[in-house]
Amino acid sequence: MNSASFDYTAVLASDAPPPASRWGGFPRYNFVGGHNDPDQIPLAGLAEAAAAALAREGASLATYGLGQGPLGHLGLRTFIARKSASHRGIAATADDVLITTGSMQGIDLVNRLLVQPGDTVIVEEFSFAGAIGKLRKLGATIIPAPLDQHGLDIGKLAEILRDLAARGVRPKYIYTIPTIQNPTGSILPLDRRQALLALARTHGVPVFEDECYADLVWAAAAPPALYALDPGIVIHIGSFSKSLAPALRLGYVIAPWEVLGRLVAGRTDSTGALEQLVVAEYFSRHFDSHVRTLTGALAEKLDTLVDALAREFGTAVEFHRPDGGIFLWLKLSDGIDVRRLVAPAAAAGIAFNPGPEWAVDPEAASGWLRLCFALPSHQDIRDGVAAFARVCAEQTGIPSRQANIVHGPAGGA
Amino acid sequence: MNSASFDYTAVLASDAPPPASRWGGFPRYNFVGGHNDPDQIPLAGLAEAAAAALAREGASLATYGLGQGPLGHLGLRTFIARKSASHRGIAATADDVLITTGSMQGIDLVNRLLVQPGDTVIVEEFSFAGAIGKLRKLGATIIPAPLDQHGLDIGKLAEILRDLAARGVRPKYIYTIPTIQNPTGSILPLDRRQALLALARTHGVPVFEDECYADLVWAAAAPPALYALDPGIVIHIGSFSKSLAPALRLGYVIAPWEVLGRLVAGRTDSTGALEQLVVAEYFSRHFDSHVRTLTGALAEKLDTLVDALAREFGTAVEFHRPDGGIFLWLKLSDGIDVRRLVAPAAAAGIAFNPGPEWAVDPEAASGWLRLCFALPSHQDIRDGVAAFARVCAEQTGIPSRQANIVHGPAGGA
Repeated sequence: MNSASFDYTAVLASDAPPPASRWGGFPRYNFVGGHNDPDQIPLAGLAEAAAAALAREGASLATYGLGQGPLGHLGLRTFIARKSASHRGIAATADDVLITTGSMQGIDLVNRLLVQPGDTVIVEEFSFAGAIGKLRKLGATIIPAPLDQHGLDIGKLAEILRDLAARGVRPKYIYTIPTIQNPTGSILPLDRRQALLALARTHGVPVFEDECYADLVWAAAAPPALYALDPGIVIHIGSFSKSLAPALRLGYVIAPWEVLGRLVAGRTDSTGALEQLVVAEYFSRHFDSHVRTLTGALAEKLDTLVDALAREFGTAVEFHRPDGGIFLWLKLSDGIDVRRLVAPAAAAGIAFNPGPEWAVDPEAASGWLRLCFALPSHQDIRDGVAAFARVCAEQTGIPSRQANIVHGPAGGA
Repeated sequence: MNSASFDYTAVLASDAPPPASRWGGFPRYNFVGGHNDPDQIPLAGLAEAAAAALAREGASLATYGLGQGPLGHLGLRTFIARKSASHRGIAATADDVLITTGSMQGIDLVNRLLVQPGDTVIVEEFSFAGAIGKLRKLGATIIPAPLDQHGLDIGKLAEILRDLAARGVRPKYIYTIPTIQNPTGSILPLDRRQALLALARTHGVPVFEDECYADLVWAAAAPPALYALDPGIVIHIGSFSKSLAPALRLGYVIAPWEVLGRLVAGRTDSTGALEQLVVAEYFSRHFDSHVRTLTGALAEKLDTLVDALAREFGTAVEFHRPDGGIFLWLKLSDGIDVRRLVAPAAAAGIAFNPGPEWAVDPEAASGWLRLCFALPSHQDIRDGVAAFARVCAEQTGIPSRQANIVHGPAGGA
């Protein structure tokens, strides 16, 4: 006898979700998710690194955490400290670095340390959907901080902080993605960084700095990280998902021990060690050359995307061209709610991120969407944008003219 | 200006822990933790597997989850299904397997799905400290189920279930480690497995089966997994931490979609993909030969440990010799509370797991301790047991005779 019919619903937690749908594969034109360019994974380099690292220190895999303690692999932490110094101006040692299972775990750990239900946090009005979702689930009150094309609007942030202080509310942190903001792609100028930190000090509110795209700046040197400018009041996280491969789950936190030591004390897992060994070995030798090649390839894909948007949408979209990263944030003509495009686009094999999912106040982003360009090939970018323009025209009449085709007033390509 | 003096305590969550101590390295004689034998990590085999897997499918690292959906790498899931069929009698396909970041994440996911504060769970009276700790943190009521040298005492479990039912309490699950029980090392006989499942069906209580040591059985074939006997009412978890390397964070859950689909829906992360690729490649070719070599080496270390205990402690300890695994559960002479030995042992460079940490009711295990034998060398096992016997003699007067040395009545070696 067995229990094929046992009813688990009788023992589920009250907040248990329904079963997920079975995985159906990626859409044909996949413009969502932080994927990278498959042609830019350094296969031979990683294989060589794996062989070298295993031969030298593979026996340490027999011990939890490689026998190197809860911060993670010393070689990887040393590389991160060195890279953060040379590229982001951060003065840190390997002992200031905690390896995490992706930067999302860094977000989870920091939230667990600081945020409880009912607490207030300040988040950029448009921000990483994953971070917003975690905070909603935690029951935090999320105050959106307005952005412009250069990032946080400092004057408006000052008003928000004053306003909260007047009501006796001390936010737990200001979460910001200053360098290649997600989704807008902006890079916060140095003067705003300094002004942000001055506000943080005045109000006694830590800054939670997410720099997971900062290695992918190509058109201009970014100002130093916020952590570089004031390590005392900033918790800094980063990732190898964007600079190497998102399927590797490797991120890091840089923070004073007062914070880092508490994250360590509150953690019950460790991060996969083979990935740490291999990435430490590969990036200790090849970081700059790899990132140079990768960002060159990404910039070319962005060119292809921008060209395709100009050809297919003309003036029916607006955007600021980012100086790095893997996504473009764009606005359709006024009055179009992108949410009504999701289903017909999916039916045409197209996936995009609707702006409302990337916004503290979904309505504020109803005309916006995010297109990620690292994964699709140049041809798929061109074909996907053309297909998306056809969907938009069918659904909204906009764009009215697509490439060399003028749509009639009733729409339809 | 910066904020070296910013006081994070003002913004911490109310349950934030104090900072951890800085990592001080492993003790000289390390008998704790689920570490493996460093000489048994197949360095060349893993390097070859990495090269082969990267060359064939490394480009998929550019996509989250390898573009294979939330269950994990298909090759690894296929291997797990095949191994679970051939070694554990489980009829499952790759679609019934969820890859987790170590089996501890499986425990977390299952707990989140089923257990809320105040819920009741049944746990073997001596069990994995990590599982007990998670349940305590969740605020669950943990009912200890008595064990004997063969595992769960079915008669006593039946009484517990009847008693709970009479009080209107339906436990969320019965957590058991039936095959190489942690810490006792027992293997539950087939008739008890069937009786356990019959009780589970009668009372409508799922069985949460942790088989993370089941690949390390050497002296006898273990009965089929509980999941094999009744997949409808069992959630099964396993791990590669013990069969390959604990620093790799790779575990798995096997369960019906009603459960697995909900675990997937509740999860916000994925498991490191390079480790999945490499282990799939290596174990698809070499699992049986690797495990045969590994268990041979472990059995020899257990021999060394048992010999050392006989030589150093004589009749002052008692234990059942396990038929597999990486630890020995032993009892010191009556009346000795092992907790008073922890500090002096640490001062002598010796770490062991005091029984109270491995018990639902700590007092019930005050005379017991767990010694893990996979990590230390044969010589360190001998020297460490001798050193531990000296500490015990100094602290308790027992053993009164150690190797060829008779301790005086005042103790002291």
